[in-house]
Amino acid sequence: MITDICIKAKAAAFEMGKLSADAKNTALCKMANALEVNAEKILAANKKDVEAAKARGLKASLLDRLALDQKKIQNMAKGLREVSDSVDPIGIVLNTWTRPNDLIISQVRVPIGVVGVIYESRPNVTSDSAGICIKSGNAVILRGGSDALNSNVAIGEVLREALLATEVPVDAVQVVNSPERSVAEEIMGMRKYIDVLVPRGGADLINTVVEKSRIPVIETGTGNCHIYVDEEADLEKAIPIVINAKVQRPGVCNAAEKLVVHNKIAQSYLPVIIGELRKNGVEVRGDELTRRIVSDVKAATEEDWYTEYLDLIISIKVVNTLEEAISHINKYGTHHSESIVTKNFTKAMQFLKEVDSAAVYWNASTRFTDGNQFGLGAEIGISTQKLHARGPMSVQHLTTTKYVILGNGQIRN
Amino acid sequence: MITDICIKAKAAAFEMGKLSADAKNTALCKMANALEVNAEKILAANKKDVEAAKARGLKASLLDRLALDQKKIQNMAKGLREVSDSVDPIGIVLNTWTRPNDLIISQVRVPIGVVGVIYESRPNVTSDSAGICIKSGNAVILRGGSDALNSNVAIGEVLREALLATEVPVDAVQVVNSPERSVAEEIMGMRKYIDVLVPRGGADLINTVVEKSRIPVIETGTGNCHIYVDEEADLEKAIPIVINAKVQRPGVCNAAEKLVVHNKIAQSYLPVIIGELRKNGVEVRGDELTRRIVSDVKAATEEDWYTEYLDLIISIKVVNTLEEAISHINKYGTHHSESIVTKNFTKAMQFLKEVDSAAVYWNASTRFTDGNQFGLGAEIGISTQKLHARGPMSVQHLTTTKYVILGNGQIRN
Repeated sequence: MITDICIKAKAAAFEMGKLSADAKNTALCKMANALEVNAEKILAANKKDVEAAKARGLKASLLDRLALDQKKIQNMAKGLREVSDSVDPIGIVLNTWTRPNDLIISQVRVPIGVVGVIYESRPNVTSDSAGICIKSGNAVILRGGSDALNSNVAIGEVLREALLATEVPVDAVQVVNSPERSVAEEIMGMRKYIDVLVPRGGADLINTVVEKSRIPVIETGTGNCHIYVDEEADLEKAIPIVINAKVQRPGVCNAAEKLVVHNKIAQSYLPVIIGELRKNGVEVRGDELTRRIVSDVKAATEEDWYTEYLDLIISIKVVNTLEEAISHINKYGTHHSESIVTKNFTKAMQFLKEVDSAAVYWNASTRFTDGNQFGLGAEIGISTQKLHARGPMSVQHLTTTKYVILGNGQIRN
Repeated sequence: MITDICIKAKAAAFEMGKLSADAKNTALCKMANALEVNAEKILAANKKDVEAAKARGLKASLLDRLALDQKKIQNMAKGLREVSDSVDPIGIVLNTWTRPNDLIISQVRVPIGVVGVIYESRPNVTSDSAGICIKSGNAVILRGGSDALNSNVAIGEVLREALLATEVPVDAVQVVNSPERSVAEEIMGMRKYIDVLVPRGGADLINTVVEKSRIPVIETGTGNCHIYVDEEADLEKAIPIVINAKVQRPGVCNAAEKLVVHNKIAQSYLPVIIGELRKNGVEVRGDELTRRIVSDVKAATEEDWYTEYLDLIISIKVVNTLEEAISHINKYGTHHSESIVTKNFTKAMQFLKEVDSAAVYWNASTRFTDGNQFGLGAEIGISTQKLHARGPMSVQHLTTTKYVILGNGQIRN
């Protein structure tokens, strides 16, 4: 079955590469309309998934991700329309130059080909990923979690039916209709057909894909994000930034999980920020020095420093120097987003240069690491790896380039 | 041992990231000088390798790659000086913009970190790779073939000694001093320390690394390159282009291995080009239609269409349409370099768009796919994969980017 899906995807990808921006945008709008028109069908399929998940005792936070409603479907449609409105990355010439022998060389943006997306229980990923892949001229193979199988299949059917009346081949969007775990592994071996695999979900899913895939993977990342409050911090900024980064939406990857504080201001700052954090329902853990200042703080373990809580918990580390802060962050962090709060330009520049993360901030909340917040448009995830794409991955990151060389009979000496 | 090397490389990479362009360039020049000053030492070590290889009966073409002489050492030194003279990619701001909330976002080029290079018996790869990695601000772990172990270790010692008197940490260049196969596999598992692995060598080496590595790999590629001679080709161009692409240097990846010819000109063109190829010592194989026109051509097998000969052999395929040519190339090729010879603009554009290769040519030899020929400078290989880098990989392709965000207390609503 998977081989068949892959062959169809490859053929669809070839056709996708020839399409105009208009053809893709028209298809995206028809897909959006179809989601709205067929909302009842999708909700009925989703109800089956939710009921089965409840019966299996799936926990509330996961049920919340799984369950669709009219509003969520409208948001999926809105997402497709926004992608349709965005700039088409394909065919953009990044650079053109002429060589001494008169060869004219251009580097041109082209689709990658076939994208595989392996994800968990959020059915909206089906529609969002399909939209981004079509916009970037690719065919997509979607493999969601078994919890959401009925929902994903229903969304896939609606989107494919919409494509029938467009220039985009129906097989540009294929949802794998099987709950078997072995199917995901089979997909990860299809190097011959699939050009890139994007896992979207928790650390376990991502690690499994990285371990098992024979296809190049773009890791979308876990975020063990840090805020460092320097001895020269403006405390009027250091309080709202930390509170915002921790509590505004604690379940997402760009939320802060750690607070690093310079020893010289720990005495004055820690009691205030810990009070504010607790007022916002945050459990505070800390190292030895933190607990000397605020004695009822729970001790942070070595494991805490590595952990992405995705919850209202924070651990606090007190350091004696900026270098110690940078070294702590580079050692324990996940290279996602880190911020320094300071008034000192030189220290800020050192932090921004030496912290090895996808996004480094000076005097701002880490919560801005996001395609829309950066102004890059819809994203398929935040890459915490260094190859191909780092940071928010938008439509243009699902492309590659080719060199196009125009000659007049040139041969090499 | 490998863990120890990796830890040292990681620490060196952190220091490398802070260096100025001047510091790196000075180190590269000192490395170049040291190679020349210590040529005798390197040649003595190389002599041991060559003698041992001769005793083991290594074939002549491999011995040729293994053996060094004064000229090759001078070329290694020259390569380091050229890299030193090239533009420093680090710190270049690709784009800066201000968001509605006044956050200033910049995308800045930064080093990748630790690069692993796994290669075969050419000792000059040791020096070339070290140069490119230092220029791009990375630390490098070099693992060459066991045939060249003494040579590689000697080159490594000379380069490291040169670094002692520079700001570049000595451990930015480390040569793995072990002939064991298991060591290469150990390196491929060091995902925690090594950011990217670049295999340089034949298809077997590359496939092994792709199969076994847990670290992201950039495939440098095999080239089963095609030239398509269209029915509207200018035959005065179609002869020298094919001869140049096939015979000028048959052992390299951008040499042509296949000739695809439109049926309408086969009758006139094939006898001429086959005559010319044979005059140049090329063995010609062909499909059924080719052999109907030139009867003493050996039959090409299915395997031939997939094969990168790296030798004076070519296989010829006759097609009825441009679409058939494109489809043949996309099916059997390695997505490296392909050329169309035609006077027809529309056909050329279709070929350039629909052939899925790193470099696509109109009326030129495929032999130009090369960092220096493209004007991109020294290269670490030609990537035939689609992620991160496609085509000649120069200094800038051993970098990544980070987002640097300057704020004034911004928090997210």
